Amino acid sequence: MKKYGFGVDIGGTTCKIGLFETTGQLVEKWEIPTNTQDAGKNILPDVAASLNGKMQERGISRDEIEGIGIGIPGPVQADGSVAVCVNLGWKNVDVPKEMGALMEGILVKAGNDANVAALGEMWQGGGKGCKSLIMVTLGTGVGGGIIVDEKIVAGTHGAGGEIGHIVVNPHEKIACNCGRKGCLEQYCSATGIVRIAKEFLAEGHEASLLDKAEEVSAKTVFDTYKENDALAVKIVEKFAYILGHALSNFACVTDPEVFVIGGGVSKAGEPLIEIVNKYYKKDAFSSCTDIKFALASLGNDAGMYGCVRLILE
Amino acid sequence: MKKYGFGVDIGGTTCKIGLFETTGQLVEKWEIPTNTQDAGKNILPDVAASLNGKMQERGISRDEIEGIGIGIPGPVQADGSVAVCVNLGWKNVDVPKEMGALMEGILVKAGNDANVAALGEMWQGGGKGCKSLIMVTLGTGVGGGIIVDEKIVAGTHGAGGEIGHIVVNPHEKIACNCGRKGCLEQYCSATGIVRIAKEFLAEGHEASLLDKAEEVSAKTVFDTYKENDALAVKIVEKFAYILGHALSNFACVTDPEVFVIGGGVSKAGEPLIEIVNKYYKKDAFSSCTDIKFALASLGNDAGMYGCVRLILE
Repeated sequence: MKKYGFGVDIGGTTCKIGLFETTGQLVEKWEIPTNTQDAGKNILPDVAASLNGKMQERGISRDEIEGIGIGIPGPVQADGSVAVCVNLGWKNVDVPKEMGALMEGILVKAGNDANVAALGEMWQGGGKGCKSLIMVTLGTGVGGGIIVDEKIVAGTHGAGGEIGHIVVNPHEKIACNCGRKGCLEQYCSATGIVRIAKEFLAEGHEASLLDKAEEVSAKTVFDTYKENDALAVKIVEKFAYILGHALSNFACVTDPEVFVIGGGVSKAGEPLIEIVNKYYKKDAFSSCTDIKFALASLGNDAGMYGCVRLILE
Repeated sequence: MKKYGFGVDIGGTTCKIGLFETTGQLVEKWEIPTNTQDAGKNILPDVAASLNGKMQERGISRDEIEGIGIGIPGPVQADGSVAVCVNLGWKNVDVPKEMGALMEGILVKAGNDANVAALGEMWQGGGKGCKSLIMVTLGTGVGGGIIVDEKIVAGTHGAGGEIGHIVVNPHEKIACNCGRKGCLEQYCSATGIVRIAKEFLAEGHEASLLDKAEEVSAKTVFDTYKENDALAVKIVEKFAYILGHALSNFACVTDPEVFVIGGGVSKAGEPLIEIVNKYYKKDAFSSCTDIKFALASLGNDAGMYGCVRLILE
């Protein structure tokens, strides 16, 4: 194994780049803007220039680089090519081939950003030491990534781990962004939690700290939940019931060692894990009741870590 | 690759044994009784004696055998050992080690019976040519097996592919055999279909061929469905909606190339596949709408096939 690897997590506005030792140690991280103009044709050349610059700056030779892993904000085929990536303006980009050419033959692999983040959390984060996990990212939406035997389950159409779009309520009237109705994302994302909160607030209810809150957000809901506010407890219990129940169903599919919970909502910390785990255990299939719950620990760096792990396979 | 492999699918009453060429060609199959007395301690020696007898009979030497794959009717750890198998009376049986010793060092691997059946259907059955699939076995219960990248997803506790115990109806009052309420198995197994049928029959309804049926079974329901009986159509549509919807959720987890439908109920054939696919497509996540549907084609031999495929990994 060579000494270094690069992890490049390409987002719609910035590319997060990390130079890692292949042991998993982050040496340095930095960002460059993502230039989505002209169908995003400059994105990979910009990244290549940045990597070459960093190697020159640090006196690192090509021979010391194991490879470059790249995370893409959209579906990625098993061979690392991208058919369409709306966020980058890409159509038919063979990432390993194009980036490999730009980097004079260094090994390049690519994966979906949510999936590589799950791989990163398995390698050096909340799922460290585990070989299989399901990562749930509770942000503006609900994302996910599934790892089985230390490998990403990318899926035939790149929809592996799209667990935010499991339908948990077939009676829902309002459509999700994806077009389905009753997706997990509609209840358990930051926006979903606000929606649940507003429904409870609109009903008659006992006095609540949330009545006085300037803005009702997932954060204010969990903050008041931690103060044992009766209404916040109801909101969080509904959220935890829906998420815990969904996880109990996923356990019957891939039966992971650990559920890793990340994304902005997971900043609520241990109390969130505890209540979701409580509802999970209530509903879980008998042999799966002891699946662990862990908080993601790499934050926005998870993708970079996972990109590097990708090239170590 | 050596010329031959054995596939041994151990059931609670008989062991199905197949001699295969490693190309996938079944050479001969036979059965021996499963002796579950004395905590099942004679099961592996009985199988070993049968295999040795067959090799002698056919003049096949040890060197011509690639290995022996064994299917177990219960949870199997990743290393092929079995903690508890109620159906066989086993506790702590290290199948590869014990069987390997009995067969003087021939490679032995073991897997759960439903999972190896899925692997068999991938190799030589309804999913032939695909690398990832979800198999759904509609029998007395609903079983399953999940294949990703040509490998079984066994799960941390052997619960990978236990898709019959996904809760599809949290409002169900009656408990499933597993203890949960509202499991897929309670509606989509042969017994589940009869239950749906009896509910419809108990309600006021138009004249139906099912009123005259001597016995209402999954078979009679599908037979009358094929004759366009209005009540049978309602029953089958309810079954297909529940199953199609569940499959649309599984697609967001592992996103397989194909759903393979097997088990006794699948004898209803193409009309069953068609209506389940119709409801699946209605509910599917946009990128997964074209996942194929196929009937299992190896019947009760699927496990033997999968056992052999296991040793070719």
